[in-house]
Amino acid sequence: MTQGMLSEPTGSVTGAGALLSILRDGQARTRAELVQLTGLARSTVSQRLDALLTHQWIVPATDAISSGGRPATAFAFNQGARVVAAADLGATHARVAVTDLASNVLVERTADLPIDRGPEVTLGWLVDTLRDLLAETGGLLCGVGVGLPGPVEHISGRPVNPPIMPGWDGFPVPEWLGSRLGAPVLVDNDVNIMALGEHWAARPEVEHLVFVKIGTGIGCGIISERRLHRGAQGAAGDIGHIRVTSADVICRCGNIGCLEAVAGGASIASQLRKAGIQAENSRDVVGLVRAGNTQAVQFIRQAGREIGDVLASIVNFFNPSVIVIGGDIAEAGEHVLAGVREVIYSRSLPLATQHLSIRATELGDRAGVIGAAVMVIEAVLAPEAVDLTVSS
Amino acid sequence: MTQGMLSEPTGSVTGAGALLSILRDGQARTRAELVQLTGLARSTVSQRLDALLTHQWIVPATDAISSGGRPATAFAFNQGARVVAAADLGATHARVAVTDLASNVLVERTADLPIDRGPEVTLGWLVDTLRDLLAETGGLLCGVGVGLPGPVEHISGRPVNPPIMPGWDGFPVPEWLGSRLGAPVLVDNDVNIMALGEHWAARPEVEHLVFVKIGTGIGCGIISERRLHRGAQGAAGDIGHIRVTSADVICRCGNIGCLEAVAGGASIASQLRKAGIQAENSRDVVGLVRAGNTQAVQFIRQAGREIGDVLASIVNFFNPSVIVIGGDIAEAGEHVLAGVREVIYSRSLPLATQHLSIRATELGDRAGVIGAAVMVIEAVLAPEAVDLTVSS
Repeated sequence: MTQGMLSEPTGSVTGAGALLSILRDGQARTRAELVQLTGLARSTVSQRLDALLTHQWIVPATDAISSGGRPATAFAFNQGARVVAAADLGATHARVAVTDLASNVLVERTADLPIDRGPEVTLGWLVDTLRDLLAETGGLLCGVGVGLPGPVEHISGRPVNPPIMPGWDGFPVPEWLGSRLGAPVLVDNDVNIMALGEHWAARPEVEHLVFVKIGTGIGCGIISERRLHRGAQGAAGDIGHIRVTSADVICRCGNIGCLEAVAGGASIASQLRKAGIQAENSRDVVGLVRAGNTQAVQFIRQAGREIGDVLASIVNFFNPSVIVIGGDIAEAGEHVLAGVREVIYSRSLPLATQHLSIRATELGDRAGVIGAAVMVIEAVLAPEAVDLTVSS
Repeated sequence: MTQGMLSEPTGSVTGAGALLSILRDGQARTRAELVQLTGLARSTVSQRLDALLTHQWIVPATDAISSGGRPATAFAFNQGARVVAAADLGATHARVAVTDLASNVLVERTADLPIDRGPEVTLGWLVDTLRDLLAETGGLLCGVGVGLPGPVEHISGRPVNPPIMPGWDGFPVPEWLGSRLGAPVLVDNDVNIMALGEHWAARPEVEHLVFVKIGTGIGCGIISERRLHRGAQGAAGDIGHIRVTSADVICRCGNIGCLEAVAGGASIASQLRKAGIQAENSRDVVGLVRAGNTQAVQFIRQAGREIGDVLASIVNFFNPSVIVIGGDIAEAGEHVLAGVREVIYSRSLPLATQHLSIRATELGDRAGVIGAAVMVIEAVLAPEAVDLTVSS
């Protein structure tokens, strides 16, 4: 099974997807309206509507019985037609959910789960957890979306040399999960799905958005013309390894002077330890900031400035209308944002910053899991993907 | 008249654009093939084909007469159906052409034309020149594409605070030209149309491309998923004003340390003058490099490195598969490219550079004018734009 093969397997009805992509906005429409909107013949529209009704993708919007036995004349998308399984697997913890086709979370679970235990342990846990959650919700599973904390080849859904995921390189995640869960599986890196989730659920009107995750490492997800920009090798958004200083700071990638090595959560914790303050990781840093530790506030604000310096160049190059800051370190609140804003507004072009909004994530730590669901929903409901058996 | 209103004004035939967008690849197709490809009814396809034939958008691909009076069974796109007017207006010189619908240049003219004489002088010259060229080619003009050396608001086609174009701010270029030439007019900045031209004519298979223009100033045009990425304010690609040094180098934009102020053509000429070598502008710099002047070669290679430093960050962020270097200074050849490559390959992530190609423009100084034509052709042939009177 390959990424993107999300259509139902048997038979085909051209045009059913076109109807569904019109109806999925939630508004009910009559047969006549659908004929006009699609340009398809009335008989064709009727046949497609029958198929969609049979498979419960749509429901009659007027009650056929209460209106005296006359046939229902309007149809609406049934967002409960299928359920979606979604997982955001981080370096040390995981969040798993089952959603409906509008990405509403029906049930979810979080757990401490170190990704470096390898794919079979991690994915085995995921299969067990999803089976539990699916037993709770019921419903027909139409796909599984998974976010991983490393580069993922888009076509195959396999991790590619992920630095913090020993044993995962080239592991066939979609096939392994798909054969156990009996549904198609889509995989992407965590920052891409966070960008997708934030865009779809919180800012669908925005054309160009950059979602910056500041955690142990630093990366970003990019929305261009409302679509995820993955780049030629799926490597787009890897801003953590942009060189920002010629100082002799060694990064875990092996280069020197990377943004992540001076402004990531691990770096800030290390700076705090050098100043004699106990801090192991991003969470400790955020805890110290929240407790009002002056040194921690200073370091985190400076990290914001370093990140802002890189983002100032990106604003000139890409001209987004929204930059969203998320990830563990973003939970330290306004201090990071202040540093980021300070540099972007002083460095970037006025034309590019006059309507630019720089804000904290609205979805918080749910951005990833909602994005994983959105990735599946978009694929399932793509006009060319909906491919139904004719019931007649 | 607003940018983008390129459909023919009277009547409407839904589906004609869909047929045309299939046929424009140049391959002839039968009625039956078109029925299958579109999913439209045979009678609908016949009606649309008749309308397209009437308006000469398509031609019969088999000769109806020589085959004994039987009706022609295949149809092909008629790339000579309309002509396109295209202009690349630079800071000091202009290139104007008339092309067919496959962006083949039918006739062209270049001239020294300082843009700072203001819009009426410049555009008046353009109208006269295009009328001459159109008289030479004949054919029905379907649109005019214009590139300007400054920021252009995408929706209105008007320049926005262009720094080197006094008198042009907010000037209604599409309306002014449209009323005189009797055709819709599309306007964009010069680097965007160069990217469009290079992508369409030389590398149509590439998904993600960055075209860097190095002239007096520095800017880039961005192709994401085969489409031009203009950004939220149409300001995307303005990499010339990314800060690259904290040294006290003042840029014409008013900031200090901009890339353009240390690596643009004007900056290199000024560095040469300080070294006692006569050089007024980019052309002089290129002349000196070609003549083997060691100092000029050194400066231009260092400029390549400075530009490479900015592009290295862009490669990590955007992950393009091709970077194209164009503009006056690019004519100095391998010296600039060598500097650019040196830094990108040492700084960017291996995953992002392993298949990255960094090359000189293939279209040379014609990239802009071909791109201006492509901008019009894409709009004219967009499925939703083709809107024909039914002939019956």
